[in-house]
Amino acid sequence: MNTTDLNKIGEFGIVDFINSKFKNTRSSSIVGIGDDAAIINSNKENLIISSDMLIEGVHFDLSYTPLKHLGYKSVVVNLSDIYAMNSYPTQILLNIALSSKFSMEAIEEFYDGVKYACDDYKIDLVGGDTTSSSSGLIISGTALGYNSKDNIVTRDNAKPDDIICVSGDLGRAYVGLLVLQREKENFIKNPKIQPSLDNYKKLVEKQLKPNARKDIIDFFYKNNIKPNSMIDISDGLSSELIHLSKSSGLGFKIYEEKLPMSLDVISTMNEFNLKPISAVLDGGEEYELLFSIPIKIFEKLNSLDIDITPIGHFTKQKKNLFILKNNQEIDIKSQGWNHFIQ
Amino acid sequence: MNTTDLNKIGEFGIVDFINSKFKNTRSSSIVGIGDDAAIINSNKENLIISSDMLIEGVHFDLSYTPLKHLGYKSVVVNLSDIYAMNSYPTQILLNIALSSKFSMEAIEEFYDGVKYACDDYKIDLVGGDTTSSSSGLIISGTALGYNSKDNIVTRDNAKPDDIICVSGDLGRAYVGLLVLQREKENFIKNPKIQPSLDNYKKLVEKQLKPNARKDIIDFFYKNNIKPNSMIDISDGLSSELIHLSKSSGLGFKIYEEKLPMSLDVISTMNEFNLKPISAVLDGGEEYELLFSIPIKIFEKLNSLDIDITPIGHFTKQKKNLFILKNNQEIDIKSQGWNHFIQ
Repeated sequence: MNTTDLNKIGEFGIVDFINSKFKNTRSSSIVGIGDDAAIINSNKENLIISSDMLIEGVHFDLSYTPLKHLGYKSVVVNLSDIYAMNSYPTQILLNIALSSKFSMEAIEEFYDGVKYACDDYKIDLVGGDTTSSSSGLIISGTALGYNSKDNIVTRDNAKPDDIICVSGDLGRAYVGLLVLQREKENFIKNPKIQPSLDNYKKLVEKQLKPNARKDIIDFFYKNNIKPNSMIDISDGLSSELIHLSKSSGLGFKIYEEKLPMSLDVISTMNEFNLKPISAVLDGGEEYELLFSIPIKIFEKLNSLDIDITPIGHFTKQKKNLFILKNNQEIDIKSQGWNHFIQ
Repeated sequence: MNTTDLNKIGEFGIVDFINSKFKNTRSSSIVGIGDDAAIINSNKENLIISSDMLIEGVHFDLSYTPLKHLGYKSVVVNLSDIYAMNSYPTQILLNIALSSKFSMEAIEEFYDGVKYACDDYKIDLVGGDTTSSSSGLIISGTALGYNSKDNIVTRDNAKPDDIICVSGDLGRAYVGLLVLQREKENFIKNPKIQPSLDNYKKLVEKQLKPNARKDIIDFFYKNNIKPNSMIDISDGLSSELIHLSKSSGLGFKIYEEKLPMSLDVISTMNEFNLKPISAVLDGGEEYELLFSIPIKIFEKLNSLDIDITPIGHFTKQKKNLFILKNNQEIDIKSQGWNHFIQ
């Protein structure tokens, strides 16, 4: 394929390309890309704003990450934080730093993915810095949305006896990463072998093209449910549970038998001779929502058709406990649980 | 000096350190660092938001950039974009990616600089992602502020015959960089020689610790002056002039004899056997404000005590012209002017 050298296009050319690709669709996007700053109409009381970085070699490996998926994921990981505040994202700014090894076509691929995500979640790309990088690809996004104070859900308001729930299932993104890394190693050893990913499709998809759980927030508003506390699972369930309990001044009990684990996570972790439970407890990049609700509201939720699983409850006692199937209690320490059980 | 290994501190430790250092001072900062997103009270009609990256090896060289200055500059370059919209920044989010070669003490130095800038400009640090980097230090900031629509100044509203003005003087940041690079080379050749920066103090200071021109915005509001168009000079005067003329559908004439150039820029460029004018036209990282005002308002401004210099005017004719002292007219092309005259 013929590719176009970025040095020929220049920074202005890249910016013009991005400008032409993204048109504002929301009436609140007064000025988008192309000035010193974006201007957003503030139609509600409170701005919700969050920023996240993705760094080549740390958060992604371009040898098995299609740029279109990476563009999509770059948007999604930022939106997820706004949904985790029980709010809807409306705009995003995306900074990108790239080396001259990238062609114009590669950038187009990346922004195709960005555009797909913006369309899927109905948000506007309103700004961002485009610059060169001396090493790899670096993406830094900032997502924002507006909400009234009464509707926002933070981390610090979980109550004792609140039921702790999680959306979807856990561990797939992590196991998907293990599969991709194994296939890369196999390819390096023997480049003639084509990667065999068919049996791992949903695992790999969750790693490469995760979704933000807008549908859960839709469900909450539709059913007039407001969680007491909420966070998205980007660093792993254990870590996020500790964020909630620490911020709310509580402890928690979660139960091994309750954790939502798919069959492909179990079978693939077994293939790797790893304990499936560690993918569920410590696997990152899930972008599922972890939240707590009073038991009375949980009963209401229980009768509705939505993929939410109760996994335990908060406690006045400030102990973070994981209850095994054999009733053994394990103290979950920040990031440290893996070392105890494996 | 004893230093503390980042691996011992961990991401949570770094985040706790940042949390404890930065307390919200503005009543509009409802929730700052520590949740999925920050919450900002929207007290005016429009949010102004801008995002910028600084990358090691591209935007700074740690061999001659003190981390405290870098922290300060990381805030200032983002604030400058909000001032350039004739608005006041109120909050900032700062993402930082760093490798394990950094010690905790190095991070403290960096955030000392961030804190100084936040205090100087009276803004709150309300969020940001802390992550690891496989290569160098990466900083991505997002600054925001609020303003009513009537007060915001964009790039696209310059009028024919508007006087084009610039704050301060130009070229120092670029010449400061040349001096620092030369001293680094000399040090590599002979490490026993101490760098001699005394004669270049203001040049080096503008490169390492630039200011955003809040005082110019204060001056505008105090004197009831609103520019028709404005931009900050981050990429060089020529480049920013072209942004304004292109966005406003105009051309311009600027005059060599009018350009604000300090004696140290002239003498140091001569030392390097370079034309001083190229530092003024194409030197980046000045963070001065470039704006246009109707001639009648300029007359008012002219009688007031402020370091603003008229350098030319906008024209209906869509030509971007630089008039030399000998009256020769040169077409300024995007980034290309250097090639014609040197």
